[in-house]
Amino acid sequence: MIKVKEDGKLLVIDFNGFEIVKHSNEIPFLHVGSGTANYDMLNGNFEIEEHLNEKIALTDYTVLEEKATSVKVKFSRNEVYAVTVNFTEVDGRLHIDFQEKPKGLNRSWIKIAAQENEHIYGCGEQFSELDLKGKKVPLWVSEQGVGRNKKDYLTFQADVHAGAGGDWYTTYYPQPTFVSSKNYWCHVEDSHYMEFDFRNDLYHELCVWSIPSKVIISKKNTALEVLEDLTAYLGRQPELPDWSYDGVWLGLQGGTETVLKKLENAQNHGLKVVALWCQDWEGKRITDFGKRLFWNWEYHKEMYPDLPQTIKELNEKGIKFLGYINTFLATDGEMYKEATKKGYIVKDNEGKDYEGAKDMPAVLMDFTNPEAVNWIKNIIKENMIGIGLSGWMCDFGEYLPTDAVLYSGESAESYHNKYPAEWAKINREAVEEAGKLGEVVFFTRAGYTGTSRYSLLMWAGDQTVNWSLDDGLASVIPAALSLGMSGFGISHSDIGGYTSLYGVKRTKELFMRWAEMAAFTPVMRTHEGNRPDDCWQFDSDEETLLHFAKMSKIYTHLKPYIKDVVKENAEKGIPAQRHPYIHYENDEELHKLKYQYLFGRDLMVAPVYEENKTSRKLYLPEDNWIHVWTGKEYGKGYHEVEAPLGEIPVFYRKGSQYEDLFKQIADIK
Amino acid sequence: MIKVKEDGKLLVIDFNGFEIVKHSNEIPFLHVGSGTANYDMLNGNFEIEEHLNEKIALTDYTVLEEKATSVKVKFSRNEVYAVTVNFTEVDGRLHIDFQEKPKGLNRSWIKIAAQENEHIYGCGEQFSELDLKGKKVPLWVSEQGVGRNKKDYLTFQADVHAGAGGDWYTTYYPQPTFVSSKNYWCHVEDSHYMEFDFRNDLYHELCVWSIPSKVIISKKNTALEVLEDLTAYLGRQPELPDWSYDGVWLGLQGGTETVLKKLENAQNHGLKVVALWCQDWEGKRITDFGKRLFWNWEYHKEMYPDLPQTIKELNEKGIKFLGYINTFLATDGEMYKEATKKGYIVKDNEGKDYEGAKDMPAVLMDFTNPEAVNWIKNIIKENMIGIGLSGWMCDFGEYLPTDAVLYSGESAESYHNKYPAEWAKINREAVEEAGKLGEVVFFTRAGYTGTSRYSLLMWAGDQTVNWSLDDGLASVIPAALSLGMSGFGISHSDIGGYTSLYGVKRTKELFMRWAEMAAFTPVMRTHEGNRPDDCWQFDSDEETLLHFAKMSKIYTHLKPYIKDVVKENAEKGIPAQRHPYIHYENDEELHKLKYQYLFGRDLMVAPVYEENKTSRKLYLPEDNWIHVWTGKEYGKGYHEVEAPLGEIPVFYRKGSQYEDLFKQIADIK
Repeated sequence: MIKVKEDGKLLVIDFNGFEIVKHSNEIPFLHVGSGTANYDMLNGNFEIEEHLNEKIALTDYTVLEEKATSVKVKFSRNEVYAVTVNFTEVDGRLHIDFQEKPKGLNRSWIKIAAQENEHIYGCGEQFSELDLKGKKVPLWVSEQGVGRNKKDYLTFQADVHAGAGGDWYTTYYPQPTFVSSKNYWCHVEDSHYMEFDFRNDLYHELCVWSIPSKVIISKKNTALEVLEDLTAYLGRQPELPDWSYDGVWLGLQGGTETVLKKLENAQNHGLKVVALWCQDWEGKRITDFGKRLFWNWEYHKEMYPDLPQTIKELNEKGIKFLGYINTFLATDGEMYKEATKKGYIVKDNEGKDYEGAKDMPAVLMDFTNPEAVNWIKNIIKENMIGIGLSGWMCDFGEYLPTDAVLYSGESAESYHNKYPAEWAKINREAVEEAGKLGEVVFFTRAGYTGTSRYSLLMWAGDQTVNWSLDDGLASVIPAALSLGMSGFGISHSDIGGYTSLYGVKRTKELFMRWAEMAAFTPVMRTHEGNRPDDCWQFDSDEETLLHFAKMSKIYTHLKPYIKDVVKENAEKGIPAQRHPYIHYENDEELHKLKYQYLFGRDLMVAPVYEENKTSRKLYLPEDNWIHVWTGKEYGKGYHEVEAPLGEIPVFYRKGSQYEDLFKQIADIK
Repeated sequence: MIKVKEDGKLLVIDFNGFEIVKHSNEIPFLHVGSGTANYDMLNGNFEIEEHLNEKIALTDYTVLEEKATSVKVKFSRNEVYAVTVNFTEVDGRLHIDFQEKPKGLNRSWIKIAAQENEHIYGCGEQFSELDLKGKKVPLWVSEQGVGRNKKDYLTFQADVHAGAGGDWYTTYYPQPTFVSSKNYWCHVEDSHYMEFDFRNDLYHELCVWSIPSKVIISKKNTALEVLEDLTAYLGRQPELPDWSYDGVWLGLQGGTETVLKKLENAQNHGLKVVALWCQDWEGKRITDFGKRLFWNWEYHKEMYPDLPQTIKELNEKGIKFLGYINTFLATDGEMYKEATKKGYIVKDNEGKDYEGAKDMPAVLMDFTNPEAVNWIKNIIKENMIGIGLSGWMCDFGEYLPTDAVLYSGESAESYHNKYPAEWAKINREAVEEAGKLGEVVFFTRAGYTGTSRYSLLMWAGDQTVNWSLDDGLASVIPAALSLGMSGFGISHSDIGGYTSLYGVKRTKELFMRWAEMAAFTPVMRTHEGNRPDDCWQFDSDEETLLHFAKMSKIYTHLKPYIKDVVKENAEKGIPAQRHPYIHYENDEELHKLKYQYLFGRDLMVAPVYEENKTSRKLYLPEDNWIHVWTGKEYGKGYHEVEAPLGEIPVFYRKGSQYEDLFKQIADIK
């Protein structure tokens, strides 16, 4: 039910009793304008500078049509520009679309009425901030950055040496979607650069570098309904393969012999391993950055001789084998020869293959070319699924330069953000066409609208191997929670982090803390990092190995629960790692938390994310909570609990149907 | 002669054959709009963030009046906004003013047609860039910053610890004035925040956060005429007192006894001293930053007992005494008591004295209150001139917060930039009212339009005591040259620099290089720096003292020449330190230079601005040039010359009327 209310100064669009638009001369619903931008890209890091030509407030309005399910309003300004806006109820949601868009306009500023005491979540994967109220959030797919804090020395170094420091908002996976604590979601259907500005008390301003095809708003009664409805709209992730939970996905490198030896040692120490993940299955190269991979998508005959046979043998022992792929082709690889001949590569404005998108001899595949899509899909099906891979890291997706020329003719300014979603779709279709959905899994880093429908699993990308809030262990917590509020409910991270630059090295303590957190996420997977020799590994000493083995046992012990949690995400879009407020809507205190989450409905997890700490302060909402390590019961409020290594603060909800399972955690050795 | 030319698509305003405005639908002469801004200030460092409400291209036009000396054009956009622009010839210049300004507008973007192969100079004091073509230059009076380069670690530290790192464009003395190598000047009469954008090949865009009262453009035949005309409009500086050139102005601190002892030692080593400059004449306090002064403007009875008598005795020996004053009053000083009672202090929005403009117990005087102006003028006349001071450092002027409330009712957003010019005017009037112009001198740091009319001398502010291009020795060269292109022709700098933070200490080499450069500027003055004990001083060893003494002798030897150079500035506005191109307009090569200048017409100076260098590459234009140290003759082109310590690359022009004087330089010991 859409209602129009007018009082002479104010035009209100009311949707099911919820005032969504409050238009006045001073705060007009819509500005339109035009501008140009310069996008400077260096290895997926963007500096974007705008030159705004016009920004015009459409202060005048005429209500052209007023029906219960459809309202049409013309917003204009002295006939300079007029845009007709349709407010239509579709499937219980409010669709706002823009018609008769004047030519030459490529900027819009749309204002949604802000509510009192509102908290804002989502906008894709946000590593530094969780509640976005008070922030202006740029939405552009990019590298996440190294350090991600302009007051941090590591960031400074990464900026100076490689323009790669990033900032609090830089992310692989932004999404023009937010969820309000006032129980509505809002999503913009468009792929151009946007900024969502939540700094004003009266309105949220959505700045879009186009006139978007649609803004969708859906108001529900509860936070759970909001998430269910959002994911019904955006698409949900299916369940993970059943084998996923049977142990860790062990990230090893170096060829068959090396990895099998390490696997044996790990298993001998009681580590539950369900998969070997060998990112160098296709070979490698050494660069300044560290050990990199050889981007030609077939198994490397010298490093992994007769890999299909090795996989077969591993599978017989209950071990899966996972590989790696990304959006590039090495120009010194065999596949590139065919791809360039057939025109499957993104072009520069001279019609040549676009070089320089990456600091390696590599070029990007053009996914707007249906033949290129089929070609790479077949490579995935034959060279990866075909030889027995049970999954792979599906890397990158952030690097499409805006001055690239695409097969489809679509501007790269518009396609840039779509690129990672298309990449996920290709991988998903390859899996489905091979009939392997539910057996084979891939995990993506970059994302945008569409990713939640196509990707099977996210990982948090390349954290620095340290304790920094913006780029270390802590950062993957808001990342998972904000993804969950954006429609993507299953994610995980490299245990121990990935990036080791400028002397930062992974310590034993960091690895152990990260491992114990990972036991309470959907997937446990390690990564040796970009400089494996500089970083503490799961097998660097006996204590670490035993600690990790114990965590793998806890994780596999929790399989029935985690499966259910992931199933709930698949069926209802309630994320596995979830912001506690969605179950305790009346508890304002919860909105202050950033580094604490519910894992499913019944486990409250508060990882130790600071160095040299043996306790942690956390908050528990209404309910009775049992501390898994001591069995002690806690009630609502702030608590400081002991948390020596190996005893990450975790509480289960009294009365949970999994109470017995949870009780046994403390006995696992 | 103003002509209007129209060809259907293009409206051209031609002034004396020079096409100044080229208006079209795509590149309209005028945009107007509105916005708000947040100015975050910390100790004179500003972070300015704008929220733009509207920006509207006034694409329509009607020529309302067309006379030879006056053209009136209405620029509008479908009657949303219309602004009538008068183009009027006044004193041979083109005045552009804006009438019937619509209410609510506080932003304008004015486009001046760019010329082919144009170089742009001025915009006040620019420390990092000289030719501003290709740059966007913000114009806002502020601290200059420590480091001034976001890729520099010192800047990073200053930013992190104090928000004080600055950037390439931060300056004490911006001015909305530029000079084009195509021999015109352009000045905007307004004091709000501006950005001059010289990045487009077709136009220069002047963004003003108001509708300015006037834009003035003056086209001349030669660069010298341009500067003469610009300074005729803006006001020129009078000559310096004759005594100025008789030696160095020696910056000493610590009370009568200490400074007299140091003076004696200096003179015993042959240093020519004409003035003692004691910034702590009014007492001092110690802070985290270093040694600071006690901002209560009367001589300190303990540190300088019976200062009037000391001054008298010094004067009899030919030594002047200089002091210090700034725009603040210490709230623990006596004068504040009177000033606050009488309402002479800048207020906050609760009507209380504005605290927190500085990280010290100090408040700003309100120069919009005529009584406050008289009051501080009398203090200057009585407590400073009255006790025999021959001059003073006239410090600060950058710190007026934009949310301050002023006596006059003018918004501080508008008054902020005017504040330093008003401060210079007060000091100038005090000198004139005391009848001491030509005997007493003061030197200012901050500035804006008006400063060139009122201040007697600039100094370059607080350089870091190092070799950095953006904030060290090198930076004072473009600073002086850009000031010269903005109408301020006599400046100097602290020999050796001032700021010693984060472990940066002044070295012997830096002091010696800076001293030899200062000998070829209008004034030689030392400063002990903010941390005197950490920094190499003129008397730190015998070699330094003798080197400095020699430089003081060269400087005083040049007195007849320097006097003439300064006189030329007073009479014609041709700056003392000048960009060589103004005498060699056909030599494109000169526009590439940043660290080389003409001192007067006949001395080419190319300071060694890098550490551990004993030679320097430089460029000489047409003419025959004699190297002062070797007597060797050089012609047009690039040359690399030997430059051991003490032999700064300096050349005199063969045929100069001062040839004999210059020849003798090499013999000075």
